[in-house]
Amino acid sequence: MKIRVLKHDLNESIQHVAKAISSRTTIPILTGIKLEVNFQGMTLTASDTDISIQAFIPAEDQNKQIVQVERPGSVVLPAKFFVEMIKKLPSAEIEMEVQEGFKTQIRSGSTDIQMVGLDPEEFPVLPSIEENQVISMPGDLLKNMIKQTVFSISSNETSPILTGVLWSLSENQFKFVATDRHRLASRTAELSNDDQVRFSNIVISGKTLNELSKIVPDQNTIVDIVVADNQVLFKIDRVLFYTRILDGTYPDTSKIIPTTYKTELVLDTKKLSDSIDRAYLLSREEKTNIVRLQTMDNGSIEISSSSSELGKVTEQLDLAEFTGEQVRISFNSKYMLDVLKVVESEQLHIGFTGAMSPIIIKPMDDTQSLYLILPYRTTN
Amino acid sequence: MKIRVLKHDLNESIQHVAKAISSRTTIPILTGIKLEVNFQGMTLTASDTDISIQAFIPAEDQNKQIVQVERPGSVVLPAKFFVEMIKKLPSAEIEMEVQEGFKTQIRSGSTDIQMVGLDPEEFPVLPSIEENQVISMPGDLLKNMIKQTVFSISSNETSPILTGVLWSLSENQFKFVATDRHRLASRTAELSNDDQVRFSNIVISGKTLNELSKIVPDQNTIVDIVVADNQVLFKIDRVLFYTRILDGTYPDTSKIIPTTYKTELVLDTKKLSDSIDRAYLLSREEKTNIVRLQTMDNGSIEISSSSSELGKVTEQLDLAEFTGEQVRISFNSKYMLDVLKVVESEQLHIGFTGAMSPIIIKPMDDTQSLYLILPYRTTN
Repeated sequence: MKIRVLKHDLNESIQHVAKAISSRTTIPILTGIKLEVNFQGMTLTASDTDISIQAFIPAEDQNKQIVQVERPGSVVLPAKFFVEMIKKLPSAEIEMEVQEGFKTQIRSGSTDIQMVGLDPEEFPVLPSIEENQVISMPGDLLKNMIKQTVFSISSNETSPILTGVLWSLSENQFKFVATDRHRLASRTAELSNDDQVRFSNIVISGKTLNELSKIVPDQNTIVDIVVADNQVLFKIDRVLFYTRILDGTYPDTSKIIPTTYKTELVLDTKKLSDSIDRAYLLSREEKTNIVRLQTMDNGSIEISSSSSELGKVTEQLDLAEFTGEQVRISFNSKYMLDVLKVVESEQLHIGFTGAMSPIIIKPMDDTQSLYLILPYRTTN
Repeated sequence: MKIRVLKHDLNESIQHVAKAISSRTTIPILTGIKLEVNFQGMTLTASDTDISIQAFIPAEDQNKQIVQVERPGSVVLPAKFFVEMIKKLPSAEIEMEVQEGFKTQIRSGSTDIQMVGLDPEEFPVLPSIEENQVISMPGDLLKNMIKQTVFSISSNETSPILTGVLWSLSENQFKFVATDRHRLASRTAELSNDDQVRFSNIVISGKTLNELSKIVPDQNTIVDIVVADNQVLFKIDRVLFYTRILDGTYPDTSKIIPTTYKTELVLDTKKLSDSIDRAYLLSREEKTNIVRLQTMDNGSIEISSSSSELGKVTEQLDLAEFTGEQVRISFNSKYMLDVLKVVESEQLHIGFTGAMSPIIIKPMDDTQSLYLILPYRTTN
């Protein structure tokens, strides 16, 4: 392998694949990035076995030469060093040449680097995925759906399936669900699903989805999602992002969501968020994060929390609407703040079916999101 | 104590004094902030015994009422909670009232807080400092002198005196020195010292100086420095910053600095910095940070480093000037980068007196700074 490549393009691709590199891997070859060059361009691959990312740099793009290939070939280079070094090279152009024993010479300006390379044959081969089930969606919608559900996954590794987000698709309805048994987030979006793709019980690690989010550009990108037996492949421009599907059956959450309420409130999202935030400051000191919400005779609500060591916070909040019974309920304020952070609607609907039943939060101008928080049983 | 105070001003003062609060103190009263109100205004005090900070909020400033005092008094409030809560209160005005048993009521908008307060009599009294020795200097100069020396202090608590920066003043020359026995930074500034103040062996903790830097505004502030027997007091606008002087005698460093050189180089600061930075990437993997510099026959220098696992970096750098003998020397690249980060001059002078003698770095257009790095003894 002998090439000249533009630093900017190489660096961009390196930054993408670097997200799949684990510093704690026990497989030495996976601490590296695989480079493969042919006359079409250069392909970079990195993998931590859970996710694999591949980025392609075309030899030529819009009549601009990006990779000048003198001799095709491949090598695996030590990722951490390679990633940081390329970024810091002095010139806009980089020369790379793989010599005997995979020793790789990198030249840029007056900098000359000899890098110890590894045999690319040792690098695991990426799964080949049948492209029977493909859906397409805007990148910013995908990112939004991830953001609005992933915070509700479980961090407890004893139920691995709950560390993922459940995906299902039927007709045009694409749905994400996440729950840690104490709270739940659900978000649906309508897709034009011309190929009549259908799936259920596809569960993808929340950690993986967060990494995926970082790779998807904020605007004007269509992401193709290929769903196979035990893998999902995301195609984002010239980047391929492979992840495995979590093993196991996701619990049926449909039955725990109430459909009728005894009490319904409509109120301002920002004001509720600020108020819970202040109450959280105190509740946090008690480690429980317990905050109490109770409806008042004057049509407002009271938010309060207390700490034996620090004191008490009480505040009143006006409601836009209030129907049904009076309610007095305690919940984890951190869970509520997590929900309020991702809600984009100015007003919220909150439904209660009693002090021991799930609290349901829905943004007013968005019928596709639903958040559930289980209340705390408290003595007073 | 019963007052109304503007949130903005209270919050600003709280942020200043909060820098003296240690979360790890074993003295319960020091987890609090002391508030003292009289008809002139409000004084806030926090202390971690090493440093104490006091901020004053005048009742009136430029015809604007800031604190409206109904009843003077004082209380100690739990710092962490108080600091975060005041920032998040909904209204621009805050009402505070200390009730029986130091219970303190805080009201703002529709938020009502009962805070557990402590007896202000238990709060340690700040030292009274005789103002015999006072010097004044611009705040940005003080910050610069701290930044350009403090990185060379020792982090090793077994020589406590070296965890500080040595201050001395004679005639108009105000000098800072820091060393960890492997490197040294020295910075002098000229002050108008009309009162003929003189001192030596004043050593102030580097950690404290970093905190002080955060409080000094970037522009247009004169800082008054009062030097007493075992304390130094900094007066910054309405903030008083007290710190103790470290015990012990600072070593005499004047003799280790060579005054003549066998080799002298002049070169571009940025280019050297970039080059050392690349070599550092490799040297870091060997834990030693060793980088080698050697002069070449063609009047340039070569910077290189190597790692058995990763490879080798070599680069050439042009010199603006080169006088004296050829030199080949190894040093800690991290120490060199620390120096290059704080040098503002475009060109540097580096002086050598042999492969085992100190390396002296001086910015070209600044005769008031000097940096010293001891070389490594290497076998090849």
